[in-house]
Amino acid sequence: MTTMARSETPFVSTLPGRYYYDQAIYDLEQERIFSQMWVCVGRADAIIGPGSYAVVTIGRESIIVVRGRDDVLRAFLNVCRHRGARLCNEASGRLKGSIQCHYHAWTYGLDGRLIGAPNVLSDEQFDRALYGLLPVALEVWEGLVWLNLADKPAPIADQLNETIVERFGDYAAFARYDVGNLKVGKTIVYDVQANWKLILENFMECYHCAPMHPEFCQLLPEFKTGIVSDYVNGEAARLAEHVEAFTITGKASRPPLPGLLPEDLRQYYGIVLQPNALLNLLHDHVVIHWLVPDGPARTRITCDWLFDPAVMAREDFDPMDAVEIFDIVNKQDWEVCQWTQLSMGSRAYKSGGVYVPVEQHIRAFADFVLERVG
Amino acid sequence: MTTMARSETPFVSTLPGRYYYDQAIYDLEQERIFSQMWVCVGRADAIIGPGSYAVVTIGRESIIVVRGRDDVLRAFLNVCRHRGARLCNEASGRLKGSIQCHYHAWTYGLDGRLIGAPNVLSDEQFDRALYGLLPVALEVWEGLVWLNLADKPAPIADQLNETIVERFGDYAAFARYDVGNLKVGKTIVYDVQANWKLILENFMECYHCAPMHPEFCQLLPEFKTGIVSDYVNGEAARLAEHVEAFTITGKASRPPLPGLLPEDLRQYYGIVLQPNALLNLLHDHVVIHWLVPDGPARTRITCDWLFDPAVMAREDFDPMDAVEIFDIVNKQDWEVCQWTQLSMGSRAYKSGGVYVPVEQHIRAFADFVLERVG
Amino acid sequence: MTTMARSETPFVSTLPGRYYYDQAIYDLEQERIFSQMWVCVGRADAIIGPGSYAVVTIGRESIIVVRGRDDVLRAFLNVCRHRGARLCNEASGRLKGSIQCHYHAWTYGLDGRLIGAPNVLSDEQFDRALYGLLPVALEVWEGLVWLNLADKPAPIADQLNETIVERFGDYAAFARYDVGNLKVGKTIVYDVQANWKLILENFMECYHCAPMHPEFCQLLPEFKTGIVSDYVNGEAARLAEHVEAFTITGKASRPPLPGLLPEDLRQYYGIVLQPNALLNLLHDHVVIHWLVPDGPARTRITCDWLFDPAVMAREDFDPMDAVEIFDIVNKQDWEVCQWTQLSMGSRAYKSGGVYVPVEQHIRAFADFVLERVG
Repeated sequence: MTTMARSETPFVSTLPGRYYYDQAIYDLEQERIFSQMWVCVGRADAIIGPGSYAVVTIGRESIIVVRGRDDVLRAFLNVCRHRGARLCNEASGRLKGSIQCHYHAWTYGLDGRLIGAPNVLSDEQFDRALYGLLPVALEVWEGLVWLNLADKPAPIADQLNETIVERFGDYAAFARYDVGNLKVGKTIVYDVQANWKLILENFMECYHCAPMHPEFCQLLPEFKTGIVSDYVNGEAARLAEHVEAFTITGKASRPPLPGLLPEDLRQYYGIVLQPNALLNLLHDHVVIHWLVPDGPARTRITCDWLFDPAVMAREDFDPMDAVEIFDIVNKQDWEVCQWTQLSMGSRAYKSGGVYVPVEQHIRAFADFVLERVG
Repeated sequence: MTTMARSETPFVSTLPGRYYYDQAIYDLEQERIFSQMWVCVGRADAIIGPGSYAVVTIGRESIIVVRGRDDVLRAFLNVCRHRGARLCNEASGRLKGSIQCHYHAWTYGLDGRLIGAPNVLSDEQFDRALYGLLPVALEVWEGLVWLNLADKPAPIADQLNETIVERFGDYAAFARYDVGNLKVGKTIVYDVQANWKLILENFMECYHCAPMHPEFCQLLPEFKTGIVSDYVNGEAARLAEHVEAFTITGKASRPPLPGLLPEDLRQYYGIVLQPNALLNLLHDHVVIHWLVPDGPARTRITCDWLFDPAVMAREDFDPMDAVEIFDIVNKQDWEVCQWTQLSMGSRAYKSGGVYVPVEQHIRAFADFVLERVG
Repeated sequence: MTTMARSETPFVSTLPGRYYYDQAIYDLEQERIFSQMWVCVGRADAIIGPGSYAVVTIGRESIIVVRGRDDVLRAFLNVCRHRGARLCNEASGRLKGSIQCHYHAWTYGLDGRLIGAPNVLSDEQFDRALYGLLPVALEVWEGLVWLNLADKPAPIADQLNETIVERFGDYAAFARYDVGNLKVGKTIVYDVQANWKLILENFMECYHCAPMHPEFCQLLPEFKTGIVSDYVNGEAARLAEHVEAFTITGKASRPPLPGLLPEDLRQYYGIVLQPNALLNLLHDHVVIHWLVPDGPARTRITCDWLFDPAVMAREDFDPMDAVEIFDIVNKQDWEVCQWTQLSMGSRAYKSGGVYVPVEQHIRAFADFVLERVG
């Protein structure tokens, strides 16, 4: 556990209130953050088998993530190139080898190429190569699907690995969780009336844990003190002595993840992967949140609880003791984020609030936002 | 049937996506199209007898269409000239010889003159002529009420007749349907989450008929090919050989309209009367759609099924075999228009889509819009 | 009763329609009227005992009105100075000696001083005096709580007393009602889809009383004529001869207010206290409306019926004969205000409507608005 070195002014300002409600700032964020960076849109293992797809949203773009005949995941703007009709109207499903528009039956391969267009495909004046689906850059990182709407996306490792190494000391410590091979045991989607940044900032500090999260603090008593600052280099909070696992009962009902070392046990890591994913690593399961901002004052949050597939295969597998505790924490957090959203337009928050020393590292996030949107 | 002469670039662009969602463009359309042209607001025979009225909407204007003591239809802005209260609050009704404001009892004749204003009407300083209801130009054309909000409306024939003559070769071929003397047998109002232009454009081509309208194509098999372009000079689609009438069963349950010639039988004419009416002429009934745009992404569509009044007078008259088939077609069209609306904000449609050759004539509609709103 | 001196043009224009729907004008009103003047936010006797509070709204500000340990009412912006969370989330309640933020347990005294902030309150680099709750100026006037968001609020008497003296001739005539010591017997909150100014303007004239308020006019027949203009210098409408009190039955069911003189009996005074309170004085009860604008086309109106506490203490006290009659009048007024709101965007009201001579004094209110928002 680290205590931040105190500068001469440890009590620094937060972002001004307008950053949390102004549509113009939100639009800039969408353009310069969510349309330039890799954005997490869910688990790759939710899209199994050729033709399986999910429809995801980044800003105003609807995007099809579809597994090809070659088992490769690809992403395309969900828009027919002919007259613009939305191609896939369900949240997920399975296509029979191609993507066909309902409007005029233009048909695209799972690789996006235009392969059918009644009466015109073979017209010599029609250049079918111009009318393939518009691709979106896609990477699978630790089992998570990340998309990038930029013209020239940077390598995804540039965005994520530094955060991981800084947090764990080295990538191997994180890799031992083998997140990419865990499977989803439970998913809950939350509709939160708060700006996406309030939700990230809430996750970045545990100064609020004592007053807000009594159940959480009983399992992880370090957080009760409110003096925990950001952990780096593999530091992690540890389960209370009497506690076996991070569950609603405190009892263990499943073995540790198979790749972990003895020193990994009984630890809790919380990590923000900017701009929109939160990872929570426990020794017997992993909880991932990914956020979809939907306007300045609304965020949809998907929370996936991941488990070792060998454990999930057991007849008596039941994820609920892990789900219940984090669902409680989630709801506590979303509620206070909503209360905070309500004040952002007040003259009291025109110049923002103040970070106490243990929150100062959140300032780096504010700087990240300010650098991009000004 | 005509195949468009192919230019060097038969694959032309549609309007850019912003034309379908941008509030500023919508406002310009309301100002320069819907407030300058004749706009269809329904059937004149829905307003029968002195004092009968309907309240209709064009853009942000609520308008009373009322039949006078002289049996003449007139239209007025639905606003009291005193303090602005809305005068008529029901969609339709019957007034007892005058229009009285509920607020201060100012009273107007059915011709719009101010005839009552407690304590001030006879005040010599009060010029009652200044405070009559504000009239809106009205014409009844083929039984349809058309309003015009322009300062100096052009003759309605200038707007409509050219379209009719181009479509039918001569006006007489259309006049034989005697649309103005048919009566409404059924009305359905649809609330569609799509821009009004998407709905017109959808109606303008039948390239989508094969994939979207199997029931329709069974009755009118020409449309199955997708190569039908715009009909002119009296060309029309013909019912399938085994089909007697354009009904859900394909059977005839009423005689042809009385004015038709033998060569008119078994034909289907679809005509767009810009900016907001669609006519569908069958040999035994007529279907009319009129659109009321309500913001960039919403259109209310009223669909009237019209029949020969002599047929409607029969005890066993039942319009439903005609209603059911077009209601199916309507719903198929509105659904795909809604799917298309969803994509208009995508980067994939920033420069629009593409018209195939059989859709090229829709470009004339795009030009009509561009000329007016820029 | 006064008839206005008629100028050469007694038929003057109202405000243009845009003043009633334009968001930019509404924002200016909020800034220059509701954030500069004293604004009524309810009855002081609704907040009894140390720690009792109510949460009220002025524009985009949520404000806590709380009674201190010293029994003094104070008002604070309902925003934690740390990270901005809304402090009180209920409309009213009772605090246990302090105001604690749910988020990080920052705690404020009932006087607004920061008295708790885990881990940082005693930090020598932390200047707790900077982080007290932001106070809002508060005055109790005749039992009503008035707040003022201006940097340097003018004395409340400057705002209110002139209106009172002009209306009653002298303050004593008003003071005899002893409004501040009456108690609430009934409260109804109305949600009206109309601009706040339409509601004030409606209250300012009784030209509409004959057509709109038959029940009201039966009790106060002067208003039936529509020629009553603004009363000044203690002039008041009088109950009809056969009527004992302003109740739904016209019968008296309670004695006159104890401080009234014989000449005060059987009178009705209606007074607007700009910007947002309406007073209705009857000889045996008082009705107060206070308005909370919520956007250009919405106003929440709280209506309190006040009675002599000695009368309320009686076992058979029943306020409903007084409540019913004014609730009828209220609903009639709100409905016509809503009808009027619907027309404000029409071209027919672009330059406004017209005031008849008995409404001309409302022009002073229009001038009040125009001076402030231009």
